[in-house]
Amino acid sequence: MKRTSHGAALCPIARSLDVIGDWWSLLIVRNAMMGTRRFGDFQKQLGVAKNILSARLRTLAEHGIIATAPASDGSAYKEYVLTAKGRALFPVLVALRQWGEEFAYQPGESFSKLVDRETRLPLRKLEIRSRDGRLLQQGDTTVVMSA
Amino acid sequence: MKRTSHGAALCPIARSLDVIGDWWSLLIVRNAMMGTRRFGDFQKQLGVAKNILSARLRTLAEHGIIATAPASDGSAYKEYVLTAKGRALFPVLVALRQWGEEFAYQPGESFSKLVDRETRLPLRKLEIRSRDGRLLQQGDTTVVMSA
Repeated sequence: MKRTSHGAALCPIARSLDVIGDWWSLLIVRNAMMGTRRFGDFQKQLGVAKNILSARLRTLAEHGIIATAPASDGSAYKEYVLTAKGRALFPVLVALRQWGEEFAYQPGESFSKLVDRETRLPLRKLEIRSRDGRLLQQGDTTVVMSA
Repeated sequence: MKRTSHGAALCPIARSLDVIGDWWSLLIVRNAMMGTRRFGDFQKQLGVAKNILSARLRTLAEHGIIATAPASDGSAYKEYVLTAKGRALFPVLVALRQWGEEFAYQPGESFSKLVDRETRLPLRKLEIRSRDGRLLQQGDTTVVMSA
């Protein structure tokens, strides 16, 4: 399917989706956050075709989300590591996860949970807050053009 | 491109992407949040082909993210309105927006800003917090299977 590029978009949501709005990209980023570093491991974990994984890793690298590094064990393998820009996608993954937890499972279905490493308790739900700390709903917000 | 369905996925991120991980879906949800209700308006605003827009609206409706309602002005038009499940995607859009604001523009480029309707100030950056309120980085978290 032909994709319209929103690279010229004035809206940061569209601009973000232009970079990571691809089916596999966020799953690659998710697995990289959980510690996956090698092509073969991404491939096995995601069950994705090699050519698609190659293309997605290349795009993520071009956008500075992932970088390649020599293998940590000194072998000839190349490893893929998130950059600061890539690690900054964590709130996007948390938001997708929390929405999925609430709406995408039937009662009784199991799913993985993101927990605080220290207490093993689930995280607090993401809150949208004003600069001065008030809890906001979508209707309390509006979109304006920045200078 | 063939898409693998992650409908059976144990990970809520994959499950969410199975529903809204499509190029257009989140942009449709974004515009619906900003008040767009009619097919022709979505089409004009997004510059998307009619057949693709139809298909995406149908999928969003099948997943209970958007519902159809009679036109608010009593005309024969059908309108599309977000459900509670659709409105709950707001944190996903805020997370994508904040990442885009920070990483997807060159210095000096303009972009739209989500502001507090009352103060006209940008929102606070999303924070990942533990249940007891500590600020967490990704490395402070881990994924476990729920019962």
